[in-house]
Amino acid sequence: MRIVKLTEDTKKDILTNLLKRSPDNYGSYEETVKNIVNDIHSRRDTALFEYTEKFDHAKINADNVRVTEAEIEEAYTQVDAKLLETIRKAIVNIRTYHEKQKQYSWFDSENNGTLLGQKVTPLAKVGVYVPGGKAAYPSSVLMNVIPAKVAGVGKIVMTTPCNAEGKVYPTTLVAAKEAGVDEVYKAGGAQAIAALAYGTESIPKVDKIVGPGNIFVALAKRCVFGHVSIDSVAGPSEIMVLADETANARYVAADLLSQAEHDEMASAILVTTSEELAKKVSEEVDGFVKELSRKDIIQKSLDNYGYILVADTMQDAIDTVNEIASEHLEVVTANPFDTMTRIQNAGAIFLGSYSSEPLGDYFAGPNHVLPTNGTAKFFSPLSVDDFIKKSSIIYYSREALEAVHEDIIDFAEAEYLTAHANSIKVRFEK
Amino acid sequence: MRIVKLTEDTKKDILTNLLKRSPDNYGSYEETVKNIVNDIHSRRDTALFEYTEKFDHAKINADNVRVTEAEIEEAYTQVDAKLLETIRKAIVNIRTYHEKQKQYSWFDSENNGTLLGQKVTPLAKVGVYVPGGKAAYPSSVLMNVIPAKVAGVGKIVMTTPCNAEGKVYPTTLVAAKEAGVDEVYKAGGAQAIAALAYGTESIPKVDKIVGPGNIFVALAKRCVFGHVSIDSVAGPSEIMVLADETANARYVAADLLSQAEHDEMASAILVTTSEELAKKVSEEVDGFVKELSRKDIIQKSLDNYGYILVADTMQDAIDTVNEIASEHLEVVTANPFDTMTRIQNAGAIFLGSYSSEPLGDYFAGPNHVLPTNGTAKFFSPLSVDDFIKKSSIIYYSREALEAVHEDIIDFAEAEYLTAHANSIKVRFEK
Repeated sequence: MRIVKLTEDTKKDILTNLLKRSPDNYGSYEETVKNIVNDIHSRRDTALFEYTEKFDHAKINADNVRVTEAEIEEAYTQVDAKLLETIRKAIVNIRTYHEKQKQYSWFDSENNGTLLGQKVTPLAKVGVYVPGGKAAYPSSVLMNVIPAKVAGVGKIVMTTPCNAEGKVYPTTLVAAKEAGVDEVYKAGGAQAIAALAYGTESIPKVDKIVGPGNIFVALAKRCVFGHVSIDSVAGPSEIMVLADETANARYVAADLLSQAEHDEMASAILVTTSEELAKKVSEEVDGFVKELSRKDIIQKSLDNYGYILVADTMQDAIDTVNEIASEHLEVVTANPFDTMTRIQNAGAIFLGSYSSEPLGDYFAGPNHVLPTNGTAKFFSPLSVDDFIKKSSIIYYSREALEAVHEDIIDFAEAEYLTAHANSIKVRFEK
Repeated sequence: MRIVKLTEDTKKDILTNLLKRSPDNYGSYEETVKNIVNDIHSRRDTALFEYTEKFDHAKINADNVRVTEAEIEEAYTQVDAKLLETIRKAIVNIRTYHEKQKQYSWFDSENNGTLLGQKVTPLAKVGVYVPGGKAAYPSSVLMNVIPAKVAGVGKIVMTTPCNAEGKVYPTTLVAAKEAGVDEVYKAGGAQAIAALAYGTESIPKVDKIVGPGNIFVALAKRCVFGHVSIDSVAGPSEIMVLADETANARYVAADLLSQAEHDEMASAILVTTSEELAKKVSEEVDGFVKELSRKDIIQKSLDNYGYILVADTMQDAIDTVNEIASEHLEVVTANPFDTMTRIQNAGAIFLGSYSSEPLGDYFAGPNHVLPTNGTAKFFSPLSVDDFIKKSSIIYYSREALEAVHEDIIDFAEAEYLTAHANSIKVRFEK
């Protein structure tokens, strides 16, 4: 794995290179996606079933688009019992963590009869998209559904593509059932996103759409944003490891590869103050790659977006971490909690030698849906926050309004909004 | 003002009519906006100053694009002392309310050496857009800037168009200074949004852009979304009043007009169970309109999007309120707090006869930047939440990881991610 000396110039080049992976650079598919979305909006089920036949090669209609209880029962017979047990353990951890994110309505009152507050309401209906086939990750189902359940969402609808026989991947169905999905529909791609955004005869319109997908799904979500809410448009996965000389090179190497295997666009970056560690990690990576089943993907991802950066000082290393704003960040330094206080931008921060990234992907409890592509500068992990919304609450007594009514009238008149001023005046007219 | 009997059919027609105001229906400007955004991205300051000359008829360059301290001092001499005092009172109320929205980092640990948590970090740089000229509302400056300040944002940059003489509206400058803006730049329209999103030689790139604007500003914000974060794309203003027979018709009428005066696309709707109230409000509205300075705008807005709806039951009325999901909702019923518990969707809820909407616009403290066009179903008022982001924190000891490592390996292997499994295995290899 290549070793690069960290300088202002190399950092700039790497930042530019990483941004190539942005979904912004897929404008060429935008028109196609927009056409599909508009077509679903106007022709609804008819268009949906046509696209399903075209892209998924499956004959789906109003009678079989919704997954039945019998299909779910069948799926349970096809899933390994031990995996089911692991899924159930993971659900407990994920639920426990997300319960702590719950926000509550509050108010504050004063004894002249004023009350101000904020009412928290769960979203009524949420759509969860789950990719089909090989890309079907049960962990992804759990991570998208459980925060919505914890938030108290009224109805959770899932769409996922079926295979040519009209079957949905059994682990997806089992994970959906275990996590508490209310309805599952056989629909994939941009057409599924449009169906959730506008509703069709078969698929209910939702308030928010979450879940990962390919570039067509990502662009479709962007296209319907504003009409419904969406989670952030996810880019390829990323790991960054910030390490000093105390780090175990073999662990660091294994962790870098855990993200590089996701796809050829994934990025794995070590930034370290130790030249010795850099060399050892590079060797360990080369050793591991040969043995791993996804070695072709890993090699391409490392060639494209993999770096071992050697920094002069820990401060330079930390600055780079904050500028790259990685989805996953492992901090493997002598005092990782101290280092963590200096991190401004990262989706999830894993501290110390035994908090390897896959622990967070599957099991520990925090969400694995994280901001990618530098968006950790302003976006947060998927959370219960994504499935609630707030309303301001304002109550003033006559006495309380009277005390401030002239200020409000002055302000309104300064903004030339006389009907605003009138609405206050009329309450105190003689 | 027209009175309509509330039925499933009339409700459907009204919902369809209201959605005509969505920014989605301005696709024809999209190309223009995209070109401006791309031009700023590639030609930066040069393009920015060209557009400023073209659209604002002002000669701006790198030397005078940033508002100076002297210009701010001059602005103070041009603003009415009483208005300044009112602005300062409003700032105290707005700050006090938003302080209560602050979220804190937290962690939860178990005595086997596991710690999970969430780190809250304010955004580093935020851009606030403020429209120019007549549309320059000092209250809007306060509402966009104060939550960012309370969140602890590192740098707040404002852009606002100047007039042909290169001057910025003085009240805007004074409000910016009072609220704590760090830098003000003379730039407006889509070009200002692009400058904030990508940075130019003069204007710093920010992490998030907030603030109202015309359709070009709204489309530009949508266009840069993902590259930076944005607040929601605001549509025209709306008020809905939910009233029973106990409401004061004159107050209700005045409050409907307070939003109708904003622009011709604004919507003002009363939904009531009292036919008598409906008639009285209609008469009061007609009486007020004649006297108000913005009567032409008001009349058009009422003709387009104004309704008095008479519902058979309070439940029908509440259902309609939840389906329309208005930006502002006044609840004027015998027991408004009870009614409020039944409201799912509204940006801000004003309770009782003395909590008129302009109280919230200027003074009480809650934010006046609210979700419009039915988006209160999934979006929230602008708040401190908009100016922070979160990172998950994960720490496991060797002991804690060892206890669960086989589960994680099983899960990873079930997802065919062998490098993920390897990252756990390597830590417990013999």
